[in-house]
Amino acid sequence: MSAALHKYRLQYDPKLPGVLGKIVDKAVITEIENGSLYHDIDPRIAEMFKHTYGKPVVGIVKGQPQQKELVVGVVLSGGQAPGGHNVIIGLHEALKKCGDGNRLIGFLGGPSGLLENKYMVVNDKIVKDYKNTGGFDMIGSGRTKLKTAQEFAIVANTCKHHGINALVVIGGDDSNTNAAVLAEYFASNGIAIQVVGVPKTIDGDLKHGGIEISFGFDTACKTYAELIGNIARDANSAKKYWHFIRLMGRSASHIALECALLTQPNVCLIGEEIKEKKISLKQVASTIVDSIVARANQGNNFGIVLVPEGLIEFIPEIGVLISEINELLSHNALEISKLDKEELLKWVGEHLLDTTKPVFASLPQAIALQMLAERDPHGNVQVSAIKTEELLMTVVQQQLDNLATKGEYKGKFNAIGHFFGYEGRAAYPTNFDADYCFALGHTAYVLIANGLTGYIASIKNSHLSVDQWQPQGVPLTSLMAVERRHGQDNPVIKKALVDLNGNPFKKLVANREQWAINTDYINPGPIQYFGPVEVSDIAPMTLVLEQS
Amino acid sequence: MSAALHKYRLQYDPKLPGVLGKIVDKAVITEIENGSLYHDIDPRIAEMFKHTYGKPVVGIVKGQPQQKELVVGVVLSGGQAPGGHNVIIGLHEALKKCGDGNRLIGFLGGPSGLLENKYMVVNDKIVKDYKNTGGFDMIGSGRTKLKTAQEFAIVANTCKHHGINALVVIGGDDSNTNAAVLAEYFASNGIAIQVVGVPKTIDGDLKHGGIEISFGFDTACKTYAELIGNIARDANSAKKYWHFIRLMGRSASHIALECALLTQPNVCLIGEEIKEKKISLKQVASTIVDSIVARANQGNNFGIVLVPEGLIEFIPEIGVLISEINELLSHNALEISKLDKEELLKWVGEHLLDTTKPVFASLPQAIALQMLAERDPHGNVQVSAIKTEELLMTVVQQQLDNLATKGEYKGKFNAIGHFFGYEGRAAYPTNFDADYCFALGHTAYVLIANGLTGYIASIKNSHLSVDQWQPQGVPLTSLMAVERRHGQDNPVIKKALVDLNGNPFKKLVANREQWAINTDYINPGPIQYFGPVEVSDIAPMTLVLEQS
Repeated sequence: MSAALHKYRLQYDPKLPGVLGKIVDKAVITEIENGSLYHDIDPRIAEMFKHTYGKPVVGIVKGQPQQKELVVGVVLSGGQAPGGHNVIIGLHEALKKCGDGNRLIGFLGGPSGLLENKYMVVNDKIVKDYKNTGGFDMIGSGRTKLKTAQEFAIVANTCKHHGINALVVIGGDDSNTNAAVLAEYFASNGIAIQVVGVPKTIDGDLKHGGIEISFGFDTACKTYAELIGNIARDANSAKKYWHFIRLMGRSASHIALECALLTQPNVCLIGEEIKEKKISLKQVASTIVDSIVARANQGNNFGIVLVPEGLIEFIPEIGVLISEINELLSHNALEISKLDKEELLKWVGEHLLDTTKPVFASLPQAIALQMLAERDPHGNVQVSAIKTEELLMTVVQQQLDNLATKGEYKGKFNAIGHFFGYEGRAAYPTNFDADYCFALGHTAYVLIANGLTGYIASIKNSHLSVDQWQPQGVPLTSLMAVERRHGQDNPVIKKALVDLNGNPFKKLVANREQWAINTDYINPGPIQYFGPVEVSDIAPMTLVLEQS
Repeated sequence: MSAALHKYRLQYDPKLPGVLGKIVDKAVITEIENGSLYHDIDPRIAEMFKHTYGKPVVGIVKGQPQQKELVVGVVLSGGQAPGGHNVIIGLHEALKKCGDGNRLIGFLGGPSGLLENKYMVVNDKIVKDYKNTGGFDMIGSGRTKLKTAQEFAIVANTCKHHGINALVVIGGDDSNTNAAVLAEYFASNGIAIQVVGVPKTIDGDLKHGGIEISFGFDTACKTYAELIGNIARDANSAKKYWHFIRLMGRSASHIALECALLTQPNVCLIGEEIKEKKISLKQVASTIVDSIVARANQGNNFGIVLVPEGLIEFIPEIGVLISEINELLSHNALEISKLDKEELLKWVGEHLLDTTKPVFASLPQAIALQMLAERDPHGNVQVSAIKTEELLMTVVQQQLDNLATKGEYKGKFNAIGHFFGYEGRAAYPTNFDADYCFALGHTAYVLIANGLTGYIASIKNSHLSVDQWQPQGVPLTSLMAVERRHGQDNPVIKKALVDLNGNPFKKLVANREQWAINTDYINPGPIQYFGPVEVSDIAPMTLVLEQS
């Protein structure tokens, strides 16, 4: 059984820009940018990527490509982002259009599928149930990271076994970093397997020069914005609650910012700004309190606060506290393994530096427990498990109590916390994401067919209508920097954080004083797949503001 | 600034059944059902409603009504439900079509607006910004209850001041009960003001004989089902989380049931069944554990559990515990007012009956604190503040640990809790709710224009296409029962709970064993306002199953 909408989504034909459409079998690459790309790149990257460094950005035009039979492998890596199926289906369709003998092999459950040779042949029968759907369930995904030469050799063997010419890695910053290293490994070892990446992540933090946006960001943000808009409309009717809404997005605050631009909440905190200006927890809470007091003076004891998931690490004293806890926990793993929750809380409280102790002591106990309860696979504090919205609600309440004692606040404060994340990662992709992913799949094909490796598929002018989109290939090495980890230099694609000089943030700044006081909420409503194009085919506002 | 969808929703023309359309000025009532309505009614209701009892259900047909100039007052009562604005706008449009001198006065902020004479004249200029929007912000709502003769006299004065002929009360079971009492008060005191109710509540529990469904239920359920469907798709991709999703809906489990029918989760708990069969907390958790173990045996360590908000009171031993805590707290208000949280927890633990003590002691501390922390205006435990999903997650974990010790469970259990409520109460109404509410507003007008009082507007055959809808008036007294509260007999409209012999529940029962084991999730996607009618104009499944 399936939903009515599901059946119609399976029938939707994603739009394609000119050269990727019916004449994709005539697509060839053309050099459109050179050297300048590498201006700011760490010279050590050139050293690390001797065979794949220094390539140009390429465009795609009509020409007479050499044809050869292709076997392509594809893998999904990391968390779900709406549109992943369409990348695979776009790639499949392009392969099909360009040669009867072409084949696509999907590796199952993420990169581990390459190590274990778990796979399925992607064909028409399979893809017909997944076109324009959310989720990564067609071939599955996983978080295994391919990093060592030994793993690369196994991957090479798996690929040779299938006669694979090229591997497409659909993933975020980490996975594309690994894709670049894998491409270099193959090239330097004379293994004739190309590697091409595709930029995926709802967090919107894989975005550099040639890559305007990662897929899934649009759908996830529009889903969260629907909920925020509904809650805001409810708040303005009930007139008795402040809603503190935490939004997924790891370190970067792109999701919170996009949602704020779509819904106009009273407060939207931006982690990057808090870090840059070294704003303390107390000051962060004050910003919210200022809005609460100003609105209470107008008789409005309700409001909306957006809190990015990564915020807590960006608050200077909490960031220091978390690093110190990480150190403590990793250096005393044995000792603390015997402690129960309460004992661990006490132990940590006693072993912190004198400067950090009061910060830890000032946290509500529930938050302190969250910091210690959940640890990531490296034993570090799992930031996403900390209910920052509840921390803020508590500190705000304390400040309001103080003001009330002094007679400076007479309102009522009832707060409700929310966290949205899983609600938007596997939604049916918006028409934007459905089209974008289908085009990225086609682009990946053209890069492969033209013999490129160490590239990532991208679309220029993605903020314009699809017929104006320009498919591109961007060399992965042009996105890289060097980071020292565990005493070693490692190449990384850095997460693109919110640019405090960028148009999206500037738009927030230009409006937020008004939004803090007024009830200027916008309710974007649920994602529409039908209807007038200005409703059904809207590019993300962050993208539009950045590109215009 | 407003969203693109918002502009288009303002332009949507709700569909109307024949006689309510262009010829609404020709609409007259016709008696379509009699006496039998009152078969099961407590004879004391006849006593209490001497002037409004015993009336027939009326239909609406084309005729030659007497015309007189009407001034109508309207009030929204209680929590938001999508479509409230359309009831008011439907009423306004009908008044406008039927007489130039007709006027509509909206009382502000709920029934208190009637007591304080706070109002706005509803006119074209105002309504144009609210058509087909969610929220109750056009005139506001409130929870003040009109109950005493003194309050009724004030309401009468307010109405006389405006020359009001009739009052329309848009509300749930409580508000419509009060509307019935008010109608009787006016009739018995020779005050020529009619009172007509409109059935509102997302909870879906105002549903009896002549009333097939309350408005807002459809939109709220479809919004929650969108989120559940997205989370389920995500779970089936990530394959590592069990999501425990609590859904708003007060006592009744209609919302959880409708969402289950739309999304096919692994487990959907129904409070009414648990009460009826006296299923203990341990047994409730076992039901979930059975599904977890069966799925783990297939390698599927993920799933979806739906938990109705009212569940906890229906679990026999917890229901008893909550009643006892309510008694304790109300009889010892002074003594406990001095205690802090920890002390109160200890105090309650010591003062419970010996039979109840172990139940309280077995609760996770966080849940015990939630029971004591939030109290409703009557000092009772606020059931909606208890995170039942977390209670279940804890008890399930304990049972799984026991099974694992015995070697009977080898899976991994990671649970994530969610609560959805405010996300759906103020959404843009679905086309169904938009049409239904517009028709209810027109129906209320016709009942008024034909001189009725003590009636509630309703639509028969609401599961069919709009042209087959039959507008009706149902006497409020036909919905009533007598309940003894504080040593007094009170008339009430009882909440309609899930019928364990009804088709919707039977459909769940027929499928749930399969759903518990398999991954049969359906993702209905976000509400669509455009596109094919089988996507954009779907009646609630509960309604369709009940009526067919």
